[in-house]
Amino acid sequence: MPELAEATAAIIAAGQRLDRLGWVPATAGNISVRLRDGTVAITRSGGHKGFLDADGVIRVGLDGGPLREGDRPSAETGLHCGIYRRFPEAGAVLHGHSVPVTVLSRRLGGSIRLESYELLKAFPGLATHAAAVELPIFDNDQDIPRLQAVVEARWAGEDAVLPGYLLRGHGIYVWGADMPQALMRLEAVEFMLRCELEVRRLP
Amino acid sequence: MPELAEATAAIIAAGQRLDRLGWVPATAGNISVRLRDGTVAITRSGGHKGFLDADGVIRVGLDGGPLREGDRPSAETGLHCGIYRRFPEAGAVLHGHSVPVTVLSRRLGGSIRLESYELLKAFPGLATHAAAVELPIFDNDQDIPRLQAVVEARWAGEDAVLPGYLLRGHGIYVWGADMPQALMRLEAVEFMLRCELEVRRLP
Amino acid sequence: MPELAEATAAIIAAGQRLDRLGWVPATAGNISVRLRDGTVAITRSGGHKGFLDADGVIRVGLDGGPLREGDRPSAETGLHCGIYRRFPEAGAVLHGHSVPVTVLSRRLGGSIRLESYELLKAFPGLATHAAAVELPIFDNDQDIPRLQAVVEARWAGEDAVLPGYLLRGHGIYVWGADMPQALMRLEAVEFMLRCELEVRRLP
Amino acid sequence: MPELAEATAAIIAAGQRLDRLGWVPATAGNISVRLRDGTVAITRSGGHKGFLDADGVIRVGLDGGPLREGDRPSAETGLHCGIYRRFPEAGAVLHGHSVPVTVLSRRLGGSIRLESYELLKAFPGLATHAAAVELPIFDNDQDIPRLQAVVEARWAGEDAVLPGYLLRGHGIYVWGADMPQALMRLEAVEFMLRCELEVRRLP
Repeated sequence: MPELAEATAAIIAAGQRLDRLGWVPATAGNISVRLRDGTVAITRSGGHKGFLDADGVIRVGLDGGPLREGDRPSAETGLHCGIYRRFPEAGAVLHGHSVPVTVLSRRLGGSIRLESYELLKAFPGLATHAAAVELPIFDNDQDIPRLQAVVEARWAGEDAVLPGYLLRGHGIYVWGADMPQALMRLEAVEFMLRCELEVRRLP
Repeated sequence: MPELAEATAAIIAAGQRLDRLGWVPATAGNISVRLRDGTVAITRSGGHKGFLDADGVIRVGLDGGPLREGDRPSAETGLHCGIYRRFPEAGAVLHGHSVPVTVLSRRLGGSIRLESYELLKAFPGLATHAAAVELPIFDNDQDIPRLQAVVEARWAGEDAVLPGYLLRGHGIYVWGADMPQALMRLEAVEFMLRCELEVRRLP
Repeated sequence: MPELAEATAAIIAAGQRLDRLGWVPATAGNISVRLRDGTVAITRSGGHKGFLDADGVIRVGLDGGPLREGDRPSAETGLHCGIYRRFPEAGAVLHGHSVPVTVLSRRLGGSIRLESYELLKAFPGLATHAAAVELPIFDNDQDIPRLQAVVEARWAGEDAVLPGYLLRGHGIYVWGADMPQALMRLEAVEFMLRCELEVRRLP
Repeated sequence: MPELAEATAAIIAAGQRLDRLGWVPATAGNISVRLRDGTVAITRSGGHKGFLDADGVIRVGLDGGPLREGDRPSAETGLHCGIYRRFPEAGAVLHGHSVPVTVLSRRLGGSIRLESYELLKAFPGLATHAAAVELPIFDNDQDIPRLQAVVEARWAGEDAVLPGYLLRGHGIYVWGADMPQALMRLEAVEFMLRCELEVRRLP
């Protein structure tokens, strides 16, 4: 796990890449990294993720509370911390907001099935494309503790939890052991969702 | 409110970003900032907004007239000034010209309904995604004073005026307290309109 | 009209922009500028237009013949020179190759109607969006002199010739008084063609 | 044929371009160059192709085995080496992973027909657009030697082998005499596949 300076640099670079890919429009999205001391570096509430500087990154505890008085974490910090509490192996969390995620999550039910994609190998435990996963879709909720409870109830019922889920009309959460792995998983899921959108439009 | 030099730099940077996003093709679009002395810095008529320099920005009064002899404001300067006259809190105005705006505004009637998008929170007074707004669409008109009168009549009939509207087949106007807020609102609306275009194409 | 060095720099910069916009894939497209001495600077046959250097630009006469022994102009040089011979006001010609141009030109007949677009104002003599133009589409032909004769026959029958036409399954030609004007007209047409493609996909 | 240093630079630059074009999401894709000594420089297993450095490139023999102990080639190295063994004129191989390739290859049968595209001239032996080719599509298979045997059986039955093929749901392989030619052929095929996807969506 990195120190704050290294984590901040990784968060800034990730924000620029997500912006170039069109996945953090306006003030959407947030990005975090678990630090060596067990706390979390995360993007501040508001602000554009494509133009972050060190001041745009704050530290919070695993309960989501800011470590420095006056810092204001975004409400969604609770979802990041929920992931870090539940999965000790999670080192970085990305929350993006793309057109395919928004459109598909609004159209579908409680999950989206991804099947026979080579990029499924980006998920842990799937060594072959001849697999299928059901990526969960949760209803959006401005009450983050209530939403996090719904997410945890779903995790509790699953044998192998996928490192990602969608919020309806809102965005996607993906995590990995570190920032490069989280970024690669996000790119893999976004690619498959773009394909799913295209497939549904073909006659 | 900024001085001219700061406003010019913000306008040039905004033009480059809008160009990268494909929202100011050819000579389309214009960009303005309200200055500390109450006048307005705005892009000159013609010219590509992705390649602005300081000479591409001129000063006009709130009535739209140029402050330096020989400067030629674009006809649409009247719409920018109409916004600044009506909304004292407006500090920056963006006029873009994207494919979703053009296609949807030509297809729809007097407004477009945006509902249940997380990015609705980019609008003032909407603290939750569980809201809906009707973004006005006006018929395009080369007679700008007549068009501005139609816009003002619509504003007069509304309790809470949204900081944006569409011109049919032409483009979008969005404003905010300063350039970052105007840019974020434009990105939020453009994102939702791209989603609306996708949704209509799904079977 | 510029000298060779200035024209070459404009051609290289235009190639990089067209590449970024995805309009010169593989070896597609070519770019030319009329020089002060009445000859033409044009991209050499083959080679990627996004990675041009000065060696990628050669000089030809208005008949399309190379001015330096050993230089090999592309076959399509004949279409550029046909434009310069017919229109003394033409100072730069762009030939691009986009997805909307390719798909629409293969689907449609002898022209495409563009109507009620604000960007129609990019064409000469159209001061308002409340206009309509018919942009010609010609069948592709590897026999360039024969193709040029077909183009000229069409021009001969028109009162006001539009500064552009499409080749079916192949690409688009657009010209202007200088490179900035040619680029702006190309962006305007490409934008309207993207809209036309979107409109046809809406239910 | 280049030495290792030159080949490595070409591979890194190609990876950055493919990333910008969206054709190597996550850890997808791989890139190789035949070296002067007859061995092959190829991207290491895993890792993002948009962020390669010299350490991301390893050397293998024509049988796919690593030349330095501990280097781990990706499984797909076998497909690259199969191309170099069969085609002495092949100097560079690109494996990309785009949305059109993925969507079309999952929808179609054993090949995709490309007809009347100007960019068909990017293929060897096709001097005109008035041609048609059938680009092979093979079922994806994690058993690479078995997959390579299927590919070779298809090649054996063809008079003129096209320098490319698709793997269903997985990606595309394209080769050329050197990296610029391989890149131009990949851009040509990807362009035609984007057009094919658009055409199928039109009513």
